[in-house]
Amino acid sequence: MSNKQNAAGRRRYGAIEAGGTKFVCAVGDDDANILDQVRVDTRDPATTMAEVNRYFGAAVNTFGPLTSIGVGAFGPLDLNPSSATYGHVTTTPKPGWKNFDLVGALKYGTGRPVQLDTDVNAAALGEWRWGAGAGLDSLAYVTVGTGIGVGVAHYGRAVHGLMHPEIGHIFVRRHPDDAGFPGICPYHGDCLEGLACGAAVVARTGRALKDAPASDPIWAIEADYLGQLCANLALSHSPQRIMIGGGVMQTRLYRTVHERMLHWLHGYIGAAELQSTGYISPPGLGGSAGILGALYLAISANQGTVTA
Amino acid sequence: MSNKQNAAGRRRYGAIEAGGTKFVCAVGDDDANILDQVRVDTRDPATTMAEVNRYFGAAVNTFGPLTSIGVGAFGPLDLNPSSATYGHVTTTPKPGWKNFDLVGALKYGTGRPVQLDTDVNAAALGEWRWGAGAGLDSLAYVTVGTGIGVGVAHYGRAVHGLMHPEIGHIFVRRHPDDAGFPGICPYHGDCLEGLACGAAVVARTGRALKDAPASDPIWAIEADYLGQLCANLALSHSPQRIMIGGGVMQTRLYRTVHERMLHWLHGYIGAAELQSTGYISPPGLGGSAGILGALYLAISANQGTVTA
Repeated sequence: MSNKQNAAGRRRYGAIEAGGTKFVCAVGDDDANILDQVRVDTRDPATTMAEVNRYFGAAVNTFGPLTSIGVGAFGPLDLNPSSATYGHVTTTPKPGWKNFDLVGALKYGTGRPVQLDTDVNAAALGEWRWGAGAGLDSLAYVTVGTGIGVGVAHYGRAVHGLMHPEIGHIFVRRHPDDAGFPGICPYHGDCLEGLACGAAVVARTGRALKDAPASDPIWAIEADYLGQLCANLALSHSPQRIMIGGGVMQTRLYRTVHERMLHWLHGYIGAAELQSTGYISPPGLGGSAGILGALYLAISANQGTVTA
Repeated sequence: MSNKQNAAGRRRYGAIEAGGTKFVCAVGDDDANILDQVRVDTRDPATTMAEVNRYFGAAVNTFGPLTSIGVGAFGPLDLNPSSATYGHVTTTPKPGWKNFDLVGALKYGTGRPVQLDTDVNAAALGEWRWGAGAGLDSLAYVTVGTGIGVGVAHYGRAVHGLMHPEIGHIFVRRHPDDAGFPGICPYHGDCLEGLACGAAVVARTGRALKDAPASDPIWAIEADYLGQLCANLALSHSPQRIMIGGGVMQTRLYRTVHERMLHWLHGYIGAAELQSTGYISPPGLGGSAGILGALYLAISANQGTVTA
């Protein structure tokens, strides 16, 4: 038994789903069990991280030593291990968090190794390990809420490189009933996120999508933009499954987004799986994809790799 | 010494760059040396494959047994190992080749294991192993010729999943000086390939891009569409480098494509590497990327994996 295992011989890990409004902090094990979980409001980095580190410090008394800590975080993030600013949040407009050393604050606060990825990459890995994407060579995880985030995992590894995917900011073609609306992305105006995130829906209609009457053209506009996203994903990443969650995704949208994806692909990709409405589905882990993804990051950090 | 090595103790591999007009067939070794190479015109599958198999049969007399054969081929291809039609060309409009069992024809014709991927995925792997993308976590290889093909390698593995990337068919936004042109893609009309491949240039101007005067607006139009492709790649795959080759790529285009990529990204991705004009470059292996990529496929088949 190694000193990284607790008295009962089982490893315990820390997991953090770090979002713009809250940090969900949890302790879990190798079998996707969440043993304890708290919510920490996201304020300035110093206040927030002090509370997060206090939580994990106290958790050791209950659960024994934590082997490592996994974090799925809002971004953009510097994920290049050879960069001087590895583990930092980079260009976020969120006050106080720009250039904040998230990995450093956790590593020095807890004394444990930290594995960081984007919130959506973490969720994609969680789905690959335990959810609706179990064992797939390629899957995409999309969240449509305040913004639009997309995580991608190939062969059980999240996509990195220059940075990490930022597919929410691709350009889509304008829906004919949506001419005039300038979009709300501070960088691009009318990129996908600027046209189709929750705040863009509110900017046009004054209410959330779920509150719009069935006759409102916003439903068809939203389905078309998300259908273009899925067509682009199918062409770019060839995922075997696309999972979409987030506050904007209402049940009735899945079928229409699938229809619009097929419209845009126009028969080019013959794969039978693509024709099935199940190709685009809610996350298999539901609202737990993020925190379980973070747990999987912690486990993979301990294995020295995120590959299977 | 295993029976897979020749008398001199070095392994020999077959490599095929299978294109719509020619099959380049070669014998190579583990160190990227091409020891012999021939060109076989692409005709109907039976005639073409008979000549290809004759070449490799005769090569054994000169070079000894071939360990395996790697093929980078035009597609789309079925690359799912558990599919009943694994190794087949699928929906190509090329007469006679639709649903042709390319891997089967080679495997039974030569008696050697065959490793297949798309021509552009093979080239991306060749560049990752021996070229301008050596050792990168993520790179993209683009060819702009008769069509537009894009291969992507993450951590030394080509992207597969539902199928393989078909990024040439993404949708781009119309350049204001290019209204009216319907595009030439038989599936999508005015997708990227339909607007920006070599045949699309000829359809508009009656000549190849290289023959267009510097004042022709086609140069700015082409640069903008390829810039949109590169912006989309940066957002979708986060490659550390984008290599572009093919008959349409003239030297002066690299700088303008880079400018248009930055225009479309509008400061969103801060990475310094992206700002450098070297981010978009010709293939490091030049015209040999395809055949060396096929050689690398053969080597990786023998290793049982395409990971490093």
